[in-house]
Amino acid sequence: MPRYRLLIEYDGTHFSGWQRQENGPSVQGAIEAAIAAFTAEDVKIRGAGRTDAGVHARGQVAHVDIVKDWRTDTVRDATNAHLRGAGVVILAADKVEDDFDARFSATARSYEYLILDRRTPPALDRGRVWHVPVRLDHEAMHQAAKVLLGRHDFTTFRASECQANSPVRTLDRLDVSREGEMVVVRAKARSFLHNQVRSMVGSLKLVGEGKWTAKDLRAALEAADRKACGPTAPAAGLCFMSVDYPEK
Amino acid sequence: MPRYRLLIEYDGTHFSGWQRQENGPSVQGAIEAAIAAFTAEDVKIRGAGRTDAGVHARGQVAHVDIVKDWRTDTVRDATNAHLRGAGVVILAADKVEDDFDARFSATARSYEYLILDRRTPPALDRGRVWHVPVRLDHEAMHQAAKVLLGRHDFTTFRASECQANSPVRTLDRLDVSREGEMVVVRAKARSFLHNQVRSMVGSLKLVGEGKWTAKDLRAALEAADRKACGPTAPAAGLCFMSVDYPEK
Repeated sequence: MPRYRLLIEYDGTHFSGWQRQENGPSVQGAIEAAIAAFTAEDVKIRGAGRTDAGVHARGQVAHVDIVKDWRTDTVRDATNAHLRGAGVVILAADKVEDDFDARFSATARSYEYLILDRRTPPALDRGRVWHVPVRLDHEAMHQAAKVLLGRHDFTTFRASECQANSPVRTLDRLDVSREGEMVVVRAKARSFLHNQVRSMVGSLKLVGEGKWTAKDLRAALEAADRKACGPTAPAAGLCFMSVDYPEK
Repeated sequence: MPRYRLLIEYDGTHFSGWQRQENGPSVQGAIEAAIAAFTAEDVKIRGAGRTDAGVHARGQVAHVDIVKDWRTDTVRDATNAHLRGAGVVILAADKVEDDFDARFSATARSYEYLILDRRTPPALDRGRVWHVPVRLDHEAMHQAAKVLLGRHDFTTFRASECQANSPVRTLDRLDVSREGEMVVVRAKARSFLHNQVRSMVGSLKLVGEGKWTAKDLRAALEAADRKACGPTAPAAGLCFMSVDYPEK
């Protein structure tokens, strides 16, 4: 039974999140229904990351087993035909080995967080950004972000409902830069805790406003206490950009 | 009676276009209603360009006369408060001289057209781009575009319903570049004919596909005949970026 790897883009605005659930439409459910519609098989897919409601993706990855051996172009195009208008698109489909697992084979995940840093709210970028009307010091944010790099107990930056066994993660990248009115935060790690990126961005914003220093951020990390975290940044600004896998 | 210049961003998706009209919501109408709501005055605004349904703006300019002398920050913020959720935002309001006219004082207008050049349709950029699934030769498009630069009779690239007195315009910029999957066309002129940018982009796409050469584009221009034009590019890819005015 061939296994396919899917590269996926989606607009998370109208979804209850990646994961299939009883209440509300999920990205996973939409893709499973689209594949089922053209294969007439009852398929289950597994994604590399479980994004929350409102979070977008330009490079989510999932795998799926299909009994019949379809051409990869057919899997991509037929699934997209059934996803038309849903805000989800399969960018690519590839055949992979049976031991490939979109979630467990991943060696790194990359996220981008967009902050629209201007007085007036967004018209064109609604649902894609966090609107912060005060001027942020992105250089102070970038410097402070270095405090979080490396291997730490990230309990402070972890949702209370996080199901991971350990709060220890290794953060490989956390860069803050400005592109005109947009402050962009780029994060990369082997894996993240639930809400970790949004929690880190929420605290970095306090640094950008001058309410926190890098020292305050370090104290929050070392507290290993969810109550030490700044307000979590909203979902809309977050986009799941890419997943790395070992070279074959 | 003070005159204000408004800098405006909007998502054209759910509007019938800039201009106030009987059928369907217009951007102009939405802004006039918002200003009327906080000033209790019956105001009329005039924009620098009349964008069509589905066309976006990051830098439309309009002027408005208000009897009462409001602070510019108040004009901006109170108008935005009444525009909440409408997909229109006043980025800035300034006081200008009585002889300033958003339309007639303009010395240049700049547009950007986005073509998503990849096999699969957009999920995140829906309503913002023209999806062209075949690979475009953006360098050939850029070279051919030079044919259209300068002063010409642009009858070929003009909507049949265009109301301008003359089909002669001077095109100052028409650049085509690639940014990953996106082919970006940037155009600048003192003024454009109705549908001129979309008509030029539609013909440049034929060049990018290899169906037309630069010579074909020149022949189309010289024909001065609407029937010589390639299919007009869709509205969604077009964004009105900025308007230039003389320095004071």
